[in-house]
Amino acid sequence: MALPPASSDVGKLATGVALERAVQEWADAIGAENVIRDGPEIRSAENATFRSDREVTAILRPASREQVQACVRIAAATRIPLYPVSGGKNWGYGSRLPAADGCAILDLRRLNRIVDFSEELAYVTVEPGVTQGELLAFLKERRSNLWIDATGASPEASVLGNTVERGFGHTPYSDHFAHACGLEIVLPSGEVIDTGFARFTNAKAAPLYNYGFGPAIDGLFSQSGFGIVTRMTVWLMPRPEYFQAFFFTAEQHEDLAAIVEALRPLRLDGTLRSAVHIGNDYKVLSGLRQYPWEETGGQTPLAPEMLAPFRKKLNFGAWSASGALYGTRIQVAEARRRLRGALRGRASRLKFLDDRMLRLASTVARPFQWITGWDLTRTLDLVKPLIGLQQGIPTDQPLKSCYWRKRRPAAQKMDPDADRCGLLWFAPVLPTRGEDALRAADIAREVVLRHGFEPALSLTLLTERAIGCVISIGYDRDVPGEDDRALACHDELVERFADEGYYPYRLGIQSMHLMRRPTPYNDFLQSVRETLDPAGILAPGRYDPRA
Amino acid sequence: MALPPASSDVGKLATGVALERAVQEWADAIGAENVIRDGPEIRSAENATFRSDREVTAILRPASREQVQACVRIAAATRIPLYPVSGGKNWGYGSRLPAADGCAILDLRRLNRIVDFSEELAYVTVEPGVTQGELLAFLKERRSNLWIDATGASPEASVLGNTVERGFGHTPYSDHFAHACGLEIVLPSGEVIDTGFARFTNAKAAPLYNYGFGPAIDGLFSQSGFGIVTRMTVWLMPRPEYFQAFFFTAEQHEDLAAIVEALRPLRLDGTLRSAVHIGNDYKVLSGLRQYPWEETGGQTPLAPEMLAPFRKKLNFGAWSASGALYGTRIQVAEARRRLRGALRGRASRLKFLDDRMLRLASTVARPFQWITGWDLTRTLDLVKPLIGLQQGIPTDQPLKSCYWRKRRPAAQKMDPDADRCGLLWFAPVLPTRGEDALRAADIAREVVLRHGFEPALSLTLLTERAIGCVISIGYDRDVPGEDDRALACHDELVERFADEGYYPYRLGIQSMHLMRRPTPYNDFLQSVRETLDPAGILAPGRYDPRA
Repeated sequence: MALPPASSDVGKLATGVALERAVQEWADAIGAENVIRDGPEIRSAENATFRSDREVTAILRPASREQVQACVRIAAATRIPLYPVSGGKNWGYGSRLPAADGCAILDLRRLNRIVDFSEELAYVTVEPGVTQGELLAFLKERRSNLWIDATGASPEASVLGNTVERGFGHTPYSDHFAHACGLEIVLPSGEVIDTGFARFTNAKAAPLYNYGFGPAIDGLFSQSGFGIVTRMTVWLMPRPEYFQAFFFTAEQHEDLAAIVEALRPLRLDGTLRSAVHIGNDYKVLSGLRQYPWEETGGQTPLAPEMLAPFRKKLNFGAWSASGALYGTRIQVAEARRRLRGALRGRASRLKFLDDRMLRLASTVARPFQWITGWDLTRTLDLVKPLIGLQQGIPTDQPLKSCYWRKRRPAAQKMDPDADRCGLLWFAPVLPTRGEDALRAADIAREVVLRHGFEPALSLTLLTERAIGCVISIGYDRDVPGEDDRALACHDELVERFADEGYYPYRLGIQSMHLMRRPTPYNDFLQSVRETLDPAGILAPGRYDPRA
Repeated sequence: MALPPASSDVGKLATGVALERAVQEWADAIGAENVIRDGPEIRSAENATFRSDREVTAILRPASREQVQACVRIAAATRIPLYPVSGGKNWGYGSRLPAADGCAILDLRRLNRIVDFSEELAYVTVEPGVTQGELLAFLKERRSNLWIDATGASPEASVLGNTVERGFGHTPYSDHFAHACGLEIVLPSGEVIDTGFARFTNAKAAPLYNYGFGPAIDGLFSQSGFGIVTRMTVWLMPRPEYFQAFFFTAEQHEDLAAIVEALRPLRLDGTLRSAVHIGNDYKVLSGLRQYPWEETGGQTPLAPEMLAPFRKKLNFGAWSASGALYGTRIQVAEARRRLRGALRGRASRLKFLDDRMLRLASTVARPFQWITGWDLTRTLDLVKPLIGLQQGIPTDQPLKSCYWRKRRPAAQKMDPDADRCGLLWFAPVLPTRGEDALRAADIAREVVLRHGFEPALSLTLLTERAIGCVISIGYDRDVPGEDDRALACHDELVERFADEGYYPYRLGIQSMHLMRRPTPYNDFLQSVRETLDPAGILAPGRYDPRA
C-alpha cells in the first residue's frame, strides 16, 4: 500500500498505527457503519475513467456538518489526510478518486438537505449531497417557476460539488460559481466559517449578495483544498416567458473561425445571454452512436475522411452549434433576427426550436426518415436532452458518449467507472477569436489522432470574452495499452496548449502537477495552505501548489 | 505625534529612528523629491470630509511597480506602515486618509499607464493612477465604441481604486469588481504576483477570464490590505445600438415598497440590465441646490413637511427613480413596454429620454419654465450628468451635493476635503423587497433627523437580488459640534442597521472597528494577514480584523 510522505518501513508502521487510531475515532464520531475500510465500495472508489493505482484508505460518511468537523479534527490529530467528495461525478477529471495516495474519502452525500429556499428572491441553499435531480424534484414539488442550471454529468451529480469546481451549464446562469454565495466552510482546523454577509448575525442579504464586507474569500475555496464547503446558496433563474433553442452547422473545418467571429459581438452585447456550444463532427458522432466498428473493420482511430458518410446520413457538418434564447416572445424574436443576420453566409441549416415544435418533430420523425433518409429520431435523441439542459433539466444522456469505444452498448444504468469506459477531458480556455478557436482545433486534431484516438471537441462561448474548449479522449480501458496512450495524449495536450498560451480552467486529478510553476504565485498559495492546513490533511495534491 | 503600537517614550524614540531610516531609504529608492515629509501636501492629506486627528508621516510617490516594491521592502524592514491610495477620491468614506496613525501614504497616481487595450475583446489594462477621465479620453482618441462604467466620484477618481474597493456605477457593467481580472499585486513581502491566467507565461486568456486555474484569489485583494494592486484588466461594454434613460416618481414615502416589488422581477429576468436608482426627496433636493437657508430662517434640520414647496417647484416626488435601457431599438422598446406595465398604478411621471430628446429639452427649457413655472433648467442640470453616467461618462456634478450645508456656493474647482464639506456615507445592503427597503428608509429617517441632519437616501437595485442603500450625512465642518454629531449619527446607523440584519458593503475608514466580531471568520482573516504581512505594514486598520 502506498502511503503519503514517508515510504520507509518505519514511516509505514507509524502511519499504520495512526490510521488505526483515526479509524477508531472516526467510528466513534460517526458510527462504525459509516467508516468503510474494505470491500467492493473501496474498490469501486479506486476506479475512475482512466488508469490509476491510487489506494483509498477508507470511506467516511458523515451525516452533518458537526460530523464533518469531527472527522477533520481526527484527521488533523492523526495526520491521515481526507479527500472530500460531494457527488463524485467528476467525470473525465477523476470521478471521486483522491489526488494523492493514503487519503480517506470524505463522502458528503449524506449531507443532503435543502436548508433554505425563496421563490421571490430566486435562490436555494443546499448541502453538498443535494443532487441536480433532487433539486429539480424539490422545485417541481413546489410548482416553482425557477430553473436550475444543470450540467450534463447526470441527475446524480452534486449541485454544490460542480459549483466549487467552477463548472458550467447551459442557461444564462451557466457560470455556476458566479451565481453562488454564502458558503459554509469547515476549515482544516475543524473550525467553521460562513462567507459574505452570512458571517454576520441574522444578515438578511446573506443569500443575496456575494461579496459581503472586507476581503471576499469565496474564490479561495473553489478548486482548492483550503476547506470543505458544507453549505452554499445557489441563485436560480426565473423561467422566462419564452424559450427557443437554436442549431446550426458549418460544412468546413475552417468555417469555425468565421462562426466564432460572428458570435462574439452577440455575446458581448447581451443578445446571446447564455453559452453557445460548437461541437465538431467527432463530438456529434460520439453523442449519436458508438464507434463504427463494423464500418471500419475494427480499425482505430476513425480517420477524418471516414466521417463523410456519417455526416451525410445523420445530417451534421464539420461543426454543429447549439444555444438558446431566453426572454419574452419579442425579446427572443429580436435575438433571432440578430443571430440570423450575424450567421448569414457563415453557417448553414440554422434552425429554431421551441417545446411545441419539438413535440411535433417527435411525431413526424419516422415518416420523415422514410421520405428523406435522414434519421431524425437519432438526432432527436441528442437534441431533446440538450434542450432540457438549456432549461436546467439534468440528464444522463451525455454519459452515453463515455461508451463510444466500448464494444458493447451502455447498460440502462450507466456507470462509466465500473464499466471501464476510458475518458479523459482537457479543457483549455481561449480568447473568443476565430484564429484562437481554429488554432486550438488544429492542435487537438493533430495530437489526439496521432495518439490513436478521435479528437472529439467542443468549444463553448462561456462568457462574453472567453471560450471553454473541451477535448474528450474516449477509449476502452479493456484494450491493453490504451490507458497509457490516453494519459500520454492528455499530458501532451496540456503541454502543447500551454506552449501556445492556452491554459486549462480545471484539470484532472492525475495531472495537477503539470500546472505547477516555481513562481511567487505558487509560494503565495503554499503559504496560505500551510497557514490553514499545517498538517496537510485536506485534499493533498488537489490544485495543490506542493503537489 | 501618535505612533502605531508602542506609545511609551522608548517606543516613540525607536519608531522615530526607524522612520528616519525609512525616509532616507525611500528617498534613495524613488528620489527625494518624491518623499514628502511636511508642508501643505501633508496637511491636505490629513483632511477628509469628516473630523480626524489622523497624522500622516509622509507621502511617497513611486512611479513604477518596481518602485512600489522597493517602498514596500523598506517599510517591511523598518516597520513603518504604508497606506496605498490610488486616486484618493474615496469621498464620504475617508478620502485618502489612512485608517491608522503613523502611516506613510503610498500615492500611486504616478503609475498611470494604460498598458493594454483591445477593441475587439473589449477590455483595457490600467495602472492605479489612471483616472476615469483619462480612460474616457483614451477611448475617445481611438474613436472606440467601448464604454467605461463610471462612478460619480469625478473624472479624477481612479478606475482601479474604485474597483478594488468594489464600487459600482450605472451601466450593465455596474459591478466593477465582477468586470475585472488579471490583477498584478505587490505583496507585503515585496514579491509580485499576477492573478488568474496572468500568472502563466504568455496566457492568451489572461485579460479575458477571471478565475484562472486553482483557487481564485482576486477577491482576497478587494477591500483589503493584503496587497497593493498595481495593475488590473477592466472589461468594457460595447456601445449599444440604442440607449434610453428613464425616470419616474412616487408621491408618498410608503410607495417605495410597491416600486421595489414592481422592479424586482424585471431585474431578475434581465429586462433591466443595469441598476435602478431610487432617491428620496432630500437626496434630489441636495443634488439640485444648497440648503434653503433663507426659506428656513437658518433652522436645521430641514423637516420633512418643509419639503413640499420644493417638491412642487422643482417637480419631484417623495421618491425619484432613474435607470436606463440598453440594446437595439426593438430590445429597448420591449423593455420600455415591460417597465411601463410593471409600474402602472405604482409610480407616476414615467418618462423616457434619449440623447436627441435631451438636446431638444435643453433648447426649450426656458420657454417651458416661462409657461409652466417648473424650473426645467435645474432638473436638466441634474439629469444631463446622470444620463452621462448611464453612458459611462464621468462627471463631478454629484460632488456639488457635498456643499449642501455650506453657506457659500461650491467653487468651480471643487475640493470637498479642503473646503471643509461634511460628508459621511453609510451603505447597507438590503434584500430587494419592498418591506426591507421601507424599513431601511424609516430607520434612516428617524436616526438622521434626530441627530440634526437631513436623511438623504438612495436605494440602488445593484444586482438581481440586492439593494445598495446609501445614506448621506451632509453637514458643514465649519459649524462647531457638527463633526461630532455627524460621526455619532453615522455610528448609530451602523449599529441600528446591524440590529435589523442589514450590513454595509463598504465602510468609512473611521468606523472599520464596528464590523469586527470575535468569530472564527475574523481569526481566519487574521491568520491570512499575519502570514502575508507579519510586520503589519500594509494599510493597518483598513478592513483589518486586528483593527
